[in-house]
Parts: sequence; structure tokens; C-alpha cells
Amino acid sequence: MSDTKVYILDHGEMTAKEYFLYWNATGEASIRLPAYSVLIDHDDGLFLFDSGFDFCQMEKLVPGLCKQSANQTLPAQLSLLGKRPSDITHVVNSHYHADHVGGNKHCLHARTICHACELEQARYPEPFEAFGYSDTSFAPGLRSGDPELDIYTPTFETLRGDQEIARGVFLFETPGHTKGHYSLMVKLGGRRPMLFTADAAYTTRTVERMQIASLHFDPIASIRSIVRLKELSEKHDAELFFGHDIDQFGHYRLGPAYYS
Amino acid sequence: MSDTKVYILDHGEMTAKEYFLYWNATGEASIRLPAYSVLIDHDDGLFLFDSGFDFCQMEKLVPGLCKQSANQTLPAQLSLLGKRPSDITHVVNSHYHADHVGGNKHCLHARTICHACELEQARYPEPFEAFGYSDTSFAPGLRSGDPELDIYTPTFETLRGDQEIARGVFLFETPGHTKGHYSLMVKLGGRRPMLFTADAAYTTRTVERMQIASLHFDPIASIRSIVRLKELSEKHDAELFFGHDIDQFGHYRLGPAYYS
Repeated sequence: MSDTKVYILDHGEMTAKEYFLYWNATGEASIRLPAYSVLIDHDDGLFLFDSGFDFCQMEKLVPGLCKQSANQTLPAQLSLLGKRPSDITHVVNSHYHADHVGGNKHCLHARTICHACELEQARYPEPFEAFGYSDTSFAPGLRSGDPELDIYTPTFETLRGDQEIARGVFLFETPGHTKGHYSLMVKLGGRRPMLFTADAAYTTRTVERMQIASLHFDPIASIRSIVRLKELSEKHDAELFFGHDIDQFGHYRLGPAYYS
Repeated sequence: MSDTKVYILDHGEMTAKEYFLYWNATGEASIRLPAYSVLIDHDDGLFLFDSGFDFCQMEKLVPGLCKQSANQTLPAQLSLLGKRPSDITHVVNSHYHADHVGGNKHCLHARTICHACELEQARYPEPFEAFGYSDTSFAPGLRSGDPELDIYTPTFETLRGDQEIARGVFLFETPGHTKGHYSLMVKLGGRRPMLFTADAAYTTRTVERMQIASLHFDPIASIRSIVRLKELSEKHDAELFFGHDIDQFGHYRLGPAYYS
């Protein structure tokens, strides 16, 4: 039986307009969005799925729209569990938007795993994607033009297709929001599998109303990925954990508590 | 020397939020959008490029956001030139969004020309496109499932690729806003060619800032089409007439005056 543990680490909040969260929605309300990462304590290592945002990077990008207390940084959240960034063996990134990679730079001993298309897109983004891919601190040489120089600091491992990266830890291709987006599912010994959608589905509303994110690479792929997440959830009896659902987040068990 | 005449017919105004006109823009101002059609009086026939909106259809779609006086309907605008809808020999549609097809149904003797992909997409739209393709009065049988029944009323002629549909009248593929979008260029005897972008570029700002429409089928194709329009404009020394630019529209010569 798996003795894998899953910790959800709280990295603060962002605020965005309704029409920015939901493509072509007309609402102008400001909506709160949690940012979190997922730590998987597994026999094969300590896996971190996404790493929240770096407050200073976000202040440059969207001034005044983010909150992160001193105990919501990645190092502070890990310390709640008695761990340090250098203990992380694998960083897995759903995608490279700024609110998902801010803590990567602290994990200097980790192998970083992502979709091959995602790394390529982060290097050569479309003009309309530059905003999302604005924090390149996870790989300082990313846009230097020299593929051998800094891009492998820390070490990258790029994947394609669905993958079981460790026993019971699955990456599923869910492109659309970005070109190489992965969602992650973890099977546990004592409960239903947890399926972390990341930004393939921001919230419950995304799935219920099929309202994709306004920020996207391919709207048709985005729709297909939402359908796929629903199907995966049914097939595996997995619980969906959305990327930025403030209401659902209120019910999460947060570190140092865990799921197992 | 060409004695072709181009009339711009005024079909009223719409209002939309800035963030709806420009994808991922944050402005919430309400912006006025003109709707117009282009009548080309040519040796080979009377060509109508787009046909404005039908007020009642738009009221169902976006209540309270459109204005169209009795003399801004297609029949009324044609009567200013001493013409009737039944005189139109060819309706050419840039795409099948509701604000471009409202007058089609009056042109009962016309052959209707569009891109093959566009007709297909109007028949089987993606869920997020249903809003745009909501006026199907131009082809009552469009979604009946019977391709032979009503879809060829009026007669459709579908094209692919760039085409010179009459001497000096060119269709250029500019997809992205919709799957099968065409822009149209007319060469005239006495002035620079007129390049009607339709919704491949709503306004001057679209081109200057490369801000594509929030409503789109493919954002990458949208960007490429804006680049293409710039290149076509330079290559042919053509003047760009944008699809919905209220400031530019204020300088148009409107029917019964004409360009030649």
C-alpha cells in the first residue's frame, strides 16, 4: 500500500477581473485566486508540483494585485514540514506562467520536469504570451539564445505524452491554456486519487460552464482539455483540485497537514 | 481603366467593452463600433461585401447595445443609390458573425461567396463560437443537418485560398478571428486600392498594438493575419479600412457618395 503523502502549500493570493478569468465573460467583478503548490513525499523522492509566485516578480507584472506573507513563500511553507528547498528532488511544472514557477529558483538540487513543448514555448513565446511567461528566473539563460548555457540550471527533463513519473504519480497532457500544459494525478493509500488540474481549469465554474481562461494559447485545445479532465476524473474516481478556486481552496487541508 | 465604384453603406452602431475588443486588455470603457457594408458596382455585377446587422437579431444577442435607424438597414441604404437588394448579384461575406450577415437575407437573387472553412464553421461552431454565429438567417437550413435542403438558399459558392473574384476585386485569406475569414481589396481607376480588413483588424489600434479581438478562433493565426494585412497594404499601396473603427469611419465617404 502506498505511503505517499501529499501536502498543499499556500503561497498567497492574487486578484483578477472576472472577464480575465473567463474568456468573453462580461462580468467585471474582482475575484480572489489562491496560489498553491503540491508537495508529494514519495518513496522515490520529494516532488514539488508548481512552486507558487515570487511576490516581487508579480509586483512588476500586476502591481498591487497579489498578497503573500513572509510565511507563504516556498521556503517558509516547506519549513512548516521541517523541510528545505534543497530537499526537493524533483520540481514538476504544469506550465511556466509566472504564478506557478516563482519558487523554482530555490530548488537548486532538483531535477525539473516539464513538457517539452512548454519549455520551448517559454523560450519563444508568442507576443501575446510574453505577459504570462514573464518570470524566467527558473532558468536564467532561457532566452539567451544559447541552449547549452543556463537553461539546464537546474537540470531539465522534458517529457511528451502522458507519463507515470513515479509509482502512482501521473502527468496528463492538458494543453490549451499553454502549449505544453500538464495536469497531475496522485494515487494515495487511504483516499481517492487527487487530480490537480493546474490552469487547465481555474475553478469549478470553468468546468461547469466550460468557460476557458481568457489567457490561452489555443481555445479549442483548452475545451478538449476540460473535457479530458472530466473523463479522467470519472475513470479514476479522482477528485479534481482546481488551479485557482478560492472557494474550493477554503476546504483544502494545508501543510503541515497532509493527504495520504 | 477601371470604372468600378465603391460605396460604403452605413448600418448603424454597436457598443462593446474595451476588454472585449482587445484580447486581455484591461480597459473597461464602452467603445462605439460602426457597422457597414461595401457595395462594389463592377462591370461583372453588383457585389456586396458583408451586409451589416439585423437589429432584431442583435437585440436578442446583446440587448440594448446596438443602434440602427430605419434608413440604416440594407434596403434603405441601397435605396439611397437607387438600388434594391434584388439587384445584388454577389454577396461576399468576410465571415458569418451576426454583425456582418444581417442583410444577406434580403439579397434573394445573389450568389453568396465565402470561404469554404467559414461556411463549415458556421454550421458546426465550437461552443465558444455559438455566440458570434447566432444569426443564421442567411441560410435557414444551416444547422438542420441536411446539407442539400436550405443551405443553398441563396446559392453559395465556397472558395479556398486567395482569389480574384472579378477583375481588380481580390479576396485574401485572413483567418484567426474566425476559421475562414476573408479580407477584400478593390483596385480603382482614380485612387489607391481599398483594403477592407473586416474583422481581421477591428481598428487602427488592433494593428498598431497587435491587439487581436477577444473573440477569436485561433490567436496565433489572428496575429499572422494582422501581419499579412500590413504586408498587403505595403505591397499594393492599399489603404486599410478597418472593420469597426469609429474614428476612421468618421472620415469615410458614405453612400450615395462613392470612391472610384
